[in-house]
Amino acid sequence: MLHAKIIDLSKEKIKSENAEEFIASSKFGASIIFYGTVRENNENKKVTGITYDSHDELVIKSFKEIYNETDQKLNIKEKSVYIEHVKGYVGLGEISIIIAVACPHRVEAYDLSRYIIEEIKKRSPIWKKEHYKNKESEWLKGNPIQAN
Amino acid sequence: MLHAKIIDLSKEKIKSENAEEFIASSKFGASIIFYGTVRENNENKKVTGITYDSHDELVIKSFKEIYNETDQKLNIKEKSVYIEHVKGYVGLGEISIIIAVACPHRVEAYDLSRYIIEEIKKRSPIWKKEHYKNKESEWLKGNPIQAN
Repeated sequence: MLHAKIIDLSKEKIKSENAEEFIASSKFGASIIFYGTVRENNENKKVTGITYDSHDELVIKSFKEIYNETDQKLNIKEKSVYIEHVKGYVGLGEISIIIAVACPHRVEAYDLSRYIIEEIKKRSPIWKKEHYKNKESEWLKGNPIQAN
Repeated sequence: MLHAKIIDLSKEKIKSENAEEFIASSKFGASIIFYGTVRENNENKKVTGITYDSHDELVIKSFKEIYNETDQKLNIKEKSVYIEHVKGYVGLGEISIIIAVACPHRVEAYDLSRYIIEEIKKRSPIWKKEHYKNKESEWLKGNPIQAN
């Protein structure tokens, strides 16, 4: 079971309760919620916030592909996965991504969670512009829009 | 920074919001919350709930030791860790343990979270009695109370 969504911060908020609710089931014994949050420091620069932009349709496509791959690649069949990434301005300490997974056992849950975040970082067309204390800002290297 | 506690379910509830709040900091870019929950099936037996018992003082001691070890063994210095285990009766789908960790980067956060749960399973004197659909119940093999 997969929930995959881009949260446009100009319209709504990202909420961890929704993730917990989605993955909850007495079929599962292990749940892992991963949050990416905006850190005040990146490569010795004082960060004040990050603006995220994405090709929404291709991001969702990549989330679905990554989810589907875990059937064969990780041999994890029984699972619930909830992925949300934000779009727009994110302040210090705030959430940019939630990946919540639940599986019968913890070994699978850790493998699944880790696989998903690593693949998203590699493949999903999401870009970020860091804002710095000196008022400058910079677009960082992201993933190209590709057919895969 | 460590929070370590046994939650006596006859007196209070385990709450994920408290874990999130404790680990939140703009120093960290990655947070992982692990939940252990009661599963309806164990070794082909239909489980209806689990009663947890523990030697509280030694459990807390083990949590502190495990946390302290990660400084050297995993070389993870910057971190927040929140561990709570319940004591008492836990119904299907309900939480028995929360381990919340936050670190600057995700690689450390995954290593830290995984290390803590594996060591707790190996070392902490917590025992569980499974209750089954046929009304029977059984104490499972746990960890001895040891001086370490």
